[in-house]
Amino acid sequence: MTVRITELIDKMSLLEKVEQLSQLSADYFQGDEVALTGPTDKTKVTTEELYSVGSVLGISGADRARKIQTDYLQHSRLKIPLLFMADVVHGYKTIFPIPLGLASSFDPELVEQAAKIAAKEAAASGLHAVFAPMVDLVRDPRWGRVMEANGEDPFLNGSLAAASVRGFQGRGESLDENHVAACVKHFAAYGAAEGGREYNTVDISEWQFRDQYLEGYQRALAAGVRLVMTSFNTLFGVPATANQVLMRSILRKELGFNGVLISDWNAIGELKEHGVASSQTEAAIKALKAGVDIDMMSFAYRELGRQLEKREHVPQELITLLDEAVYRVLKLKEELGLFADPFRGMDALKEEKNVFTEDNLEIAQKAAEESTVLLENKENLLPLSPNTKITLLGPLAREKDLLGSWSWKGDSHENMTIAAALQSKFKKMTVLTESFTAEELDLVALAQKTAASQIVIVALGLTSDQSGEATSMTHLELPAEQLALLKALKKIGKKVVTLVVTGRPLVLTEVSKLSDAVLLPWFPGSRGAQAITEIIAGAINPSGKLPMSFPRSIGQIPLYYNSLRTGRPLTGEDSLDKENKYLSKYIDEQNSPLYCFGYGQSYATFEIKEVVLANNQVAKNDELRLEVTVANESQIDGQTVIQGYTHQCVAETARPVRELKMFKKIALKAKTVKKVEMRIPTARLAYVHQDLTSSVDRGAYELYVGFDANAQKKISFEII
Amino acid sequence: MTVRITELIDKMSLLEKVEQLSQLSADYFQGDEVALTGPTDKTKVTTEELYSVGSVLGISGADRARKIQTDYLQHSRLKIPLLFMADVVHGYKTIFPIPLGLASSFDPELVEQAAKIAAKEAAASGLHAVFAPMVDLVRDPRWGRVMEANGEDPFLNGSLAAASVRGFQGRGESLDENHVAACVKHFAAYGAAEGGREYNTVDISEWQFRDQYLEGYQRALAAGVRLVMTSFNTLFGVPATANQVLMRSILRKELGFNGVLISDWNAIGELKEHGVASSQTEAAIKALKAGVDIDMMSFAYRELGRQLEKREHVPQELITLLDEAVYRVLKLKEELGLFADPFRGMDALKEEKNVFTEDNLEIAQKAAEESTVLLENKENLLPLSPNTKITLLGPLAREKDLLGSWSWKGDSHENMTIAAALQSKFKKMTVLTESFTAEELDLVALAQKTAASQIVIVALGLTSDQSGEATSMTHLELPAEQLALLKALKKIGKKVVTLVVTGRPLVLTEVSKLSDAVLLPWFPGSRGAQAITEIIAGAINPSGKLPMSFPRSIGQIPLYYNSLRTGRPLTGEDSLDKENKYLSKYIDEQNSPLYCFGYGQSYATFEIKEVVLANNQVAKNDELRLEVTVANESQIDGQTVIQGYTHQCVAETARPVRELKMFKKIALKAKTVKKVEMRIPTARLAYVHQDLTSSVDRGAYELYVGFDANAQKKISFEII
Repeated sequence: MTVRITELIDKMSLLEKVEQLSQLSADYFQGDEVALTGPTDKTKVTTEELYSVGSVLGISGADRARKIQTDYLQHSRLKIPLLFMADVVHGYKTIFPIPLGLASSFDPELVEQAAKIAAKEAAASGLHAVFAPMVDLVRDPRWGRVMEANGEDPFLNGSLAAASVRGFQGRGESLDENHVAACVKHFAAYGAAEGGREYNTVDISEWQFRDQYLEGYQRALAAGVRLVMTSFNTLFGVPATANQVLMRSILRKELGFNGVLISDWNAIGELKEHGVASSQTEAAIKALKAGVDIDMMSFAYRELGRQLEKREHVPQELITLLDEAVYRVLKLKEELGLFADPFRGMDALKEEKNVFTEDNLEIAQKAAEESTVLLENKENLLPLSPNTKITLLGPLAREKDLLGSWSWKGDSHENMTIAAALQSKFKKMTVLTESFTAEELDLVALAQKTAASQIVIVALGLTSDQSGEATSMTHLELPAEQLALLKALKKIGKKVVTLVVTGRPLVLTEVSKLSDAVLLPWFPGSRGAQAITEIIAGAINPSGKLPMSFPRSIGQIPLYYNSLRTGRPLTGEDSLDKENKYLSKYIDEQNSPLYCFGYGQSYATFEIKEVVLANNQVAKNDELRLEVTVANESQIDGQTVIQGYTHQCVAETARPVRELKMFKKIALKAKTVKKVEMRIPTARLAYVHQDLTSSVDRGAYELYVGFDANAQKKISFEII
Repeated sequence: MTVRITELIDKMSLLEKVEQLSQLSADYFQGDEVALTGPTDKTKVTTEELYSVGSVLGISGADRARKIQTDYLQHSRLKIPLLFMADVVHGYKTIFPIPLGLASSFDPELVEQAAKIAAKEAAASGLHAVFAPMVDLVRDPRWGRVMEANGEDPFLNGSLAAASVRGFQGRGESLDENHVAACVKHFAAYGAAEGGREYNTVDISEWQFRDQYLEGYQRALAAGVRLVMTSFNTLFGVPATANQVLMRSILRKELGFNGVLISDWNAIGELKEHGVASSQTEAAIKALKAGVDIDMMSFAYRELGRQLEKREHVPQELITLLDEAVYRVLKLKEELGLFADPFRGMDALKEEKNVFTEDNLEIAQKAAEESTVLLENKENLLPLSPNTKITLLGPLAREKDLLGSWSWKGDSHENMTIAAALQSKFKKMTVLTESFTAEELDLVALAQKTAASQIVIVALGLTSDQSGEATSMTHLELPAEQLALLKALKKIGKKVVTLVVTGRPLVLTEVSKLSDAVLLPWFPGSRGAQAITEIIAGAINPSGKLPMSFPRSIGQIPLYYNSLRTGRPLTGEDSLDKENKYLSKYIDEQNSPLYCFGYGQSYATFEIKEVVLANNQVAKNDELRLEVTVANESQIDGQTVIQGYTHQCVAETARPVRELKMFKKIALKAKTVKKVEMRIPTARLAYVHQDLTSSVDRGAYELYVGFDANAQKKISFEII
């Protein structure tokens, strides 16, 4: 222990300790003078408590943060600086595509760069730590927070989790003033909420948890993430926030995490609603025993402190638990340099210089371009030449709501609309002010209004408040009136380019039939409209790949490419084939998704020409080395993602039919061929055995190389 | 060990042992002379092997069984009689409602009676054992085999599981000639197949497995079930058929099962497809090690035997495993009395006398009456008086397909149609031959055809091949043309009684809006049409209660009443209320089902007047005793089910919001009040703790008494 910290702890009263472990929201503070305020229950926090609270959530702006810190330090007894945290999820003020969009880039470096910019903007604005990245593996698009996830694949998720942590915290050992502490969330398995319903129960086996869900958190931890947030859900029957097996045995002991564990908003208090605690005090004790250091907004730790103060004898066990938690919080403050400089990085001038800059916005645009997925492009309709006669319509055409949820400091008024951005490139474009989404669609008017255009671009999708926290949905088709518009356009014989703005995978079965081209920009962020325009105009060749399977219908959910082998696999293409009844399939729907994991088209045509293994027998501590020959057979430059999926032929447990174990984004000029070196360390092929330990088996493996989860180029190798 | 059995085993060659453990389907045998036949691969079984095989599946008919047994014993070396098994699931020839229908009776005695009749018919027809009951807990109506289940509740499932075993096997210690050995299936948790897709992976935590899924199997075991069948799915990552934790540690050791464990069809061979065995031999060894005694149709045990025979040294471990398995199979044959009389119970005369008798059919009709659920009855439209002018139409009106799947020996040609049955009571009924399910419905014709009737009865639903094994579905609405018919009838202003024939819960949101009354007979069996008629005519007052929640839309699945408490429960009625966003809910759908578990209307009106506890403080080894005062406030006699749901206020793990812990079906005359004694042994309140052991906690509990899972009468009690 650092001397200063233990000395400080010795000086702290019991109440000061529980306050140090308490986190309040910004509405308890005012800008000019620290004081109780806002809508929360004033009786919950006394002035004394406020001046010994440990951290604040949601404050921003260098001046405001500085004022609060100054006032706090003036009044507080021990002068321990406040820690400022906030939800900086996909950018601070410069907004990047939503995480699920960024994941479509399949580009860890880009994700790192985005997090780095977010960190720089946030740090200059007074923040020390951010509640990101979220690395909850998700197989259910009903869950609203899917927008904040990296999708359904453990390896992609883990790779991007690590990249994000590196971006927020920097690559060095220490956290400099341009970086912030990252907080990986939500430990654990929150993405498996039953029925996709927010805050709902999670129930998966410990085997699956370790085999599939753990990697994201593990790799964030390996990248040195400073904080971990507990999840709202139960796991193995016990709410995560009180789950000693999860937090003590797995997170602390097994994974060696000694940073700060913070609860989610009011999660400690909600142990009562979960029915595992009868009072705030009992909830607090359970959370402390599980090793939760910071109580975000439940006031349970505070209540525990008040109760303990009244007692003559406080059990040593509790004191030790409190001291350990306080130690971790203070250590984080020390690592952030707050004892040296409580105003670390907060600088109004720097804020103005660093935040929402053209440089940052250019990266945001690049990120949006790389994240956009071309789902359909029949007869190579896209890109469109500048002189194309176009009509633009649809509810999102003139909408600035392109940032997506969790873009707290982003200001959508500063966005261009899709209409404005497209008009800058396509001079012969007409934008219709009618949205044509009335229940009774006027076909004649629609035909008249679009008569002069060869091409109609339809901007469809959901609003940003239809994804993110607490937005679980049971219907994943586009709204009926939007589908009606597509049907009408089909009827009047237009070539239709459909843009789908969304924070979650949707059921696009109808959309794909009714459209000639479908472009999926997700919620693309501050420069989303420009990115869409560059792609439609062909200045940028789309290269995004889906990080989640898109179902044909909602009844297929959960649907993910890396499902376990069954005893009666569907062998043919067509699950509706009645000949082979007794197979694992539906009688009214295909097994396959509409668009599979890893899928995304390009204006160029890529082909894997050859895959050569340097070694088809690989030692257990070695790596598989291969050379992939890729050709761009088209007349247009482009990027694609080489993806390698392995399959272990025989194992102790059932294994996924395929597992992504390598990917690389490459750029390839028109009509060129390239040899790409790739590798898979054998350690990456470890899986969780029946005894719940992870190791690599000797034996036969297959590798499929291609551009999505249906990759066809098959190579066999052996681990010896 | 019985001397005879061990002596026999000593005489057996290795190949004879593996044959004794092999089960062949009936198509390997012919009626007159045992010989290889049929479509299966002839090279798989030699004549010698055939004459030492242990059991046969799917043979029926006393004469045929007798002939095969005679021929077999003539040719076989050791003269060990064959064991005959078959899928007798909801009746042999007298077909009862499908199990999910029977479960709606909430009447264990009725279930026992149905199984008893099935056993008597099956035994007389030469069968010794049946593949029933299926007690897989199901929360997903997409799974086709839901029709064979007892629904979503552990306690109801367990109660009916035990009743079914008692019915098949009899209440005595020994299995007399009128009973058969039962085989509980599928161990374990097959009902949780992911995505409701047949043969798919199951992944639930061991905690949930023990807390919710185990009870059905446990109570069948406690009732003395002679056989257990392995499930097709993986559990904790390993296919059940090779899962030593599941079979050795839990089933054999912990639950003390020493009967015969049989694989499902080809499940041992399919360990290869699961990717946990590289060959038939390896698959066989894995299954043997897991303790699987009979290999149904995979030929893996046979292959293992052939391989072992070639070896100079056979490991003692394998010989011991084989001997143990053979012992259990021979012991079952002994318990069945086959050594004493290989033709036990097979009697063509008795068969004729016992099978498909009027007595049996009357019970089948009673079962159908008790299983039918009245879902809607607006303005007390039902029952209809005999003189009502009625039009009957719809695709199922003149259909005899009312038996449902798994009614192998049932002959639907012997059924009455709904039309014929109704016509016998309603003389003023017209049956339309047109089904009015064309895509473009002729409203004018429909109006004309129905003009003379006040009431239209519409027989809708699915066909029997749309439920049962390998019929997983992703769309659970009635077919579009059936809904179109209802819409048309609504448009022309008819009063509509809708009959929904189905083997699974459906999404009836539209149907309930468009109908004045909705009656759900499930697949009601041999006397289903008559049962429906009695109910519509009011001779029988419906009393069926749903054993599964009916969702409002498929996106709500899985939806079950006994979900765990969350930290942010939806408190109000309306989950679409935007005020309280941050709750566990959807933004586009209610949380609640359309029809909840335990729900079902009556023509009578029942009310719980009072619940008096004899003891509101109950000792741990005691029982809660209560007196429920129920009133029938209507002018019509009826039956209902008093249901009691408990909730433990604070526990170590999250607990279900409610759990059914008592139910009693009662009959109550019009305008009478009755006091009903009920009890809940405290042992029934045991739950699985974090350490995976089950026990009862002291503390506060709540009990809700009523007529469905929304029961409102609340009583508090304490376990001390």
